[in-house]
Amino acid sequence: MIIVMSPQASNDDLQRVVDRIRAAGLNEHISRGTERTVVGAIGDERSLSEQTFEQLPGVERALHIVKPYKLVAREGHPAGTVVDIRGIKLGGKQIQVIAGPCSVETQPQMDASAAAVAAAGCRLMRGGAFKPRTSPYSFQGLGVQGLEMFQQAAREYKLPIVTELMDVRMLDTFLEHDVDVIQIGARNMQNFDLLKEVGRVNKPVILKRGLSATISELLMAAEYIAAGGNHNIILCERGIRTFETAYRNVLDVTAIPVLQRETHLPVVVDPSHAGGKAWMVPALARAAIAAGADGLLIEAHPNPCEAWCDADQALTPAELTELMASLRLIAQAVGREL
Amino acid sequence: MIIVMSPQASNDDLQRVVDRIRAAGLNEHISRGTERTVVGAIGDERSLSEQTFEQLPGVERALHIVKPYKLVAREGHPAGTVVDIRGIKLGGKQIQVIAGPCSVETQPQMDASAAAVAAAGCRLMRGGAFKPRTSPYSFQGLGVQGLEMFQQAAREYKLPIVTELMDVRMLDTFLEHDVDVIQIGARNMQNFDLLKEVGRVNKPVILKRGLSATISELLMAAEYIAAGGNHNIILCERGIRTFETAYRNVLDVTAIPVLQRETHLPVVVDPSHAGGKAWMVPALARAAIAAGADGLLIEAHPNPCEAWCDADQALTPAELTELMASLRLIAQAVGREL
Amino acid sequence: MIIVMSPQASNDDLQRVVDRIRAAGLNEHISRGTERTVVGAIGDERSLSEQTFEQLPGVERALHIVKPYKLVAREGHPAGTVVDIRGIKLGGKQIQVIAGPCSVETQPQMDASAAAVAAAGCRLMRGGAFKPRTSPYSFQGLGVQGLEMFQQAAREYKLPIVTELMDVRMLDTFLEHDVDVIQIGARNMQNFDLLKEVGRVNKPVILKRGLSATISELLMAAEYIAAGGNHNIILCERGIRTFETAYRNVLDVTAIPVLQRETHLPVVVDPSHAGGKAWMVPALARAAIAAGADGLLIEAHPNPCEAWCDADQALTPAELTELMASLRLIAQAVGREL
Amino acid sequence: MIIVMSPQASNDDLQRVVDRIRAAGLNEHISRGTERTVVGAIGDERSLSEQTFEQLPGVERALHIVKPYKLVAREGHPAGTVVDIRGIKLGGKQIQVIAGPCSVETQPQMDASAAAVAAAGCRLMRGGAFKPRTSPYSFQGLGVQGLEMFQQAAREYKLPIVTELMDVRMLDTFLEHDVDVIQIGARNMQNFDLLKEVGRVNKPVILKRGLSATISELLMAAEYIAAGGNHNIILCERGIRTFETAYRNVLDVTAIPVLQRETHLPVVVDPSHAGGKAWMVPALARAAIAAGADGLLIEAHPNPCEAWCDADQALTPAELTELMASLRLIAQAVGREL
Repeated sequence: MIIVMSPQASNDDLQRVVDRIRAAGLNEHISRGTERTVVGAIGDERSLSEQTFEQLPGVERALHIVKPYKLVAREGHPAGTVVDIRGIKLGGKQIQVIAGPCSVETQPQMDASAAAVAAAGCRLMRGGAFKPRTSPYSFQGLGVQGLEMFQQAAREYKLPIVTELMDVRMLDTFLEHDVDVIQIGARNMQNFDLLKEVGRVNKPVILKRGLSATISELLMAAEYIAAGGNHNIILCERGIRTFETAYRNVLDVTAIPVLQRETHLPVVVDPSHAGGKAWMVPALARAAIAAGADGLLIEAHPNPCEAWCDADQALTPAELTELMASLRLIAQAVGREL
Repeated sequence: MIIVMSPQASNDDLQRVVDRIRAAGLNEHISRGTERTVVGAIGDERSLSEQTFEQLPGVERALHIVKPYKLVAREGHPAGTVVDIRGIKLGGKQIQVIAGPCSVETQPQMDASAAAVAAAGCRLMRGGAFKPRTSPYSFQGLGVQGLEMFQQAAREYKLPIVTELMDVRMLDTFLEHDVDVIQIGARNMQNFDLLKEVGRVNKPVILKRGLSATISELLMAAEYIAAGGNHNIILCERGIRTFETAYRNVLDVTAIPVLQRETHLPVVVDPSHAGGKAWMVPALARAAIAAGADGLLIEAHPNPCEAWCDADQALTPAELTELMASLRLIAQAVGREL
Repeated sequence: MIIVMSPQASNDDLQRVVDRIRAAGLNEHISRGTERTVVGAIGDERSLSEQTFEQLPGVERALHIVKPYKLVAREGHPAGTVVDIRGIKLGGKQIQVIAGPCSVETQPQMDASAAAVAAAGCRLMRGGAFKPRTSPYSFQGLGVQGLEMFQQAAREYKLPIVTELMDVRMLDTFLEHDVDVIQIGARNMQNFDLLKEVGRVNKPVILKRGLSATISELLMAAEYIAAGGNHNIILCERGIRTFETAYRNVLDVTAIPVLQRETHLPVVVDPSHAGGKAWMVPALARAAIAAGADGLLIEAHPNPCEAWCDADQALTPAELTELMASLRLIAQAVGREL
Repeated sequence: MIIVMSPQASNDDLQRVVDRIRAAGLNEHISRGTERTVVGAIGDERSLSEQTFEQLPGVERALHIVKPYKLVAREGHPAGTVVDIRGIKLGGKQIQVIAGPCSVETQPQMDASAAAVAAAGCRLMRGGAFKPRTSPYSFQGLGVQGLEMFQQAAREYKLPIVTELMDVRMLDTFLEHDVDVIQIGARNMQNFDLLKEVGRVNKPVILKRGLSATISELLMAAEYIAAGGNHNIILCERGIRTFETAYRNVLDVTAIPVLQRETHLPVVVDPSHAGGKAWMVPALARAAIAAGADGLLIEAHPNPCEAWCDADQALTPAELTELMASLRLIAQAVGREL
């Protein structure tokens, strides 16, 4: 950590900083410049907080030199993590497209969805049984019954399932129903008790970036899961909130190469929630793969016009099949398979 | 709801829109302009979703005319709600300042805090026993033991206590320890299961606005609580996330008059978390009261330099006392008391 | 335009709205719903302002149904515009990469740059003679002398040149030096006097999106140029400002398909300024082409370590050549050429 | 400046950094930590650019220790600047309210405005003769004729006038018409050629913060003016662009104390443009004064319903008078006069 002293700092102020560094078991290194004196804290600076120094008299600013995340950092783990989902590899050369409806509605809808997902060549299926909805008056998901419908449909096509866990009390139910990948939604990215609990189980987790979460916060949320012992974490960029109102969110493609530099975890992208309109999905999906994403989460529905939620962002089975063909060409152009 | 047809929309497209409106039990009203045809849906439009229409062919845009919140809306409840917290009124003429440390650390620290809070003239006390921390390696709060220390210190001065609930499984413990006001933190504003649970109890709730939550989303989160039967809700503006990096968050004072126009619920402001530095707190606190806030949440610590978290944003007892005097003058200037 | 009356609106309030609509030469259409009365204004609503109605008593909200831009709108001009730059077509099947250094420094630097740009297969060259710098103490560009060096280097390789105009008083000088494409920078996107002047000349213009400009504002800025008579406009997405601090700006790939739906003008992307680091450029450039961009603006320098500005975002000649090969594959994957 | 080396950096990488520091005439100071080596550059670091170092091999990050602004910095100029506008002091104990219509429309409108502004007790008058409008089809201001009407009306009441300069070519006209304070609008905050020109004249300048400009960028824009020799600069916070859509912009009250700590220049606030609605102006104006602003820019119109622009944000003469009374109480509460 670097502590910048203000021009007016006294020797006593400086000594107080030094004392605090030593109290934490680190050593100081003082550098006197022409305009400012700078103190370096030598040792494991993760035990120091910037705030502890910034409120001391004579301190202008304190800043970490080392990133706050450790287990999920690429530094120290140079090889990328490949998550194995019942034999399907996510994070390697092969790109995975996880498709399916926004929410589980009926058994026929799920059967038709699973058939369409498999026919399009996707190897994993998504669908929501518990839905985070802005309004308490909106459809909240079928719950446990939805999990059952989902499994029945997906098992027929040997598709591992991905579904969102919102309430920590439902974790055991998810395990009983053998959910293959637990999704933590954007709104729960910093629901720390939920993160701690999924950190204790041995199931792959897709962690979605919060609407206004920084890269660092996303990685610290993943660190919560990893710190519990679960290293099967997949990060998901799903659009961030900005000033623009012409579309729901802004897909942050820059996050893809930046995350891949900072962490060894695989990175997938959700172009459906980012744009919020089905007609935007193909362009955004292609951009994500071209930028290096390891996979995609795509909403598809056998009959989007009749979907119970997010009707305007789901692809039809025909559109999904067409998109997969187009993505295969992009994957090849960047030296990968799909 | 208003549905704007695209210039290329056919009569069939229009008919499909009309059919869908009627299927939801509403009536249509068609208005043919020079450039666009617009369809109005007459009836309770809250049962309609914009997305259901936007994915129909020939539809350019659908938009709600009526706000999505109902129980918390000022419309229909013109009088402001006054929340009674063990005899202390929040929402009326008297402004309430809720002060205390970021986290419960030790019994002596809490005893000294309670004494300072009472001496400064504040009527409620805040303090965290369960702390949402960005890093899994940071101090996570003393937990239940912290609740006990907090109550022991606060009861001595008859100060009702405000503390944050993060995990739905701890709600019963909060009730057993007779927490007076349950705080829902910014990161949990859309933790819908948590909202539903606090909606079922008969305790006042302070609901903090999420870092990038819109006014509408904040009100819909409050609607979740109200829909459960608990109408003792206090909204809290605590700074929003923007592009600016010179300070932690931007205190959104505009939210105060806008919320007071839109909802009958009281609105308090947390200037400590907004700015993130103790020296900014007096200016922001004064601005909040001048803009019409019903109360403040302020961090104060008997010895900020030794605080275990957020050390650089806590006021000393002397600073708190001085601030209260200054706020009293502002309160009078806007026709209120403190 | 739609005017939503508040539930408390009187008949007089309604009449006042109607009078104002008629005064502007339009007709009203009144629709009485169960909760709100809505008034439609039938006719060319571009002459009406939302504000004119929103301050009338009894009016809750007024909103435009038709987009405010006309000349640049895809509606009415379904075919895409192809801009011809001395024989090079921008906007058609062939994707154009405009490469070159951030700023003109010396004749040898420009000669080497032009050689590298041509050798990599790019057909246009960029370079700044007048530089918008955040600090008055930073290098401000070589000015007119820089234009001369640029032309001398570029003409050798028959590369049309693209360079930024900041000051309206320099427009004649740009014309005298036969600048092929005038670039309007992000900071000047709403410098309306500058837009009006370049609207009067017969030169292609690249208009960069402001750091926090909405799609609608960008199109209205283009409308300023088009309204002057110059329809040779190329829009440029160059990253937007958000809360994220891990990279300079967020490249908004969603803007590409959205702009292409809203306007007939070609859309190019500047991945160099968006990310701000050379190592991010390939991923962002590929994403932009995959999302459908008509071209790219890329910073390249014969010796980035010695560049006088933005040294860390310029590609070397070898990196540029390698990127072009990779972009050719992406272009083919989306059915285009490069 | 601090240069953080990556863990993989070689001795050659380190030497290259040292060489570059020495080449710029500074000295290095090397500190070897347990995880990173950090190099300090001792001397006037303003001549160094972070980018110059960040693109060198083995460098992880470079960061300035000293702020980039100098002439406008509070450091070195501890006393606050008081700007004298024809005898009216802005920046001292007395708070100044600058009121008037959005745009100059007619002589009677300006006469009535000036009468109302003076009657309410304001000492300066604002009004736009040249208007920056998002649409080329909106009213663009009366131009020079507007300046004449404005002066004629204001001189009658001895009110110094404040009006916006958009086009550098109009500066001489502004001087001929003896404009008392030149306003640089938010959209032109980084129109560097305009800043340089107003830096050369001897007239007070109000510099408005750009919609997404950081505090540092605002101060660097002021530094452009100061570097030209004109130190009569008044900064204006006018609301920033965020994700919130319930109001036009978010008034950033935190900017007030932060600017006052960072710079010696006076700070005024424009609550009218921030909120965008007349009913929000009183709350925002009170908040600004309570937070320590040195003045306000407020839109007022003799007949807002008939205003040619921004009709819904102008106060009536009666509302302005009432607001002034309320602001006087707030001013007293913070130890100032109005």
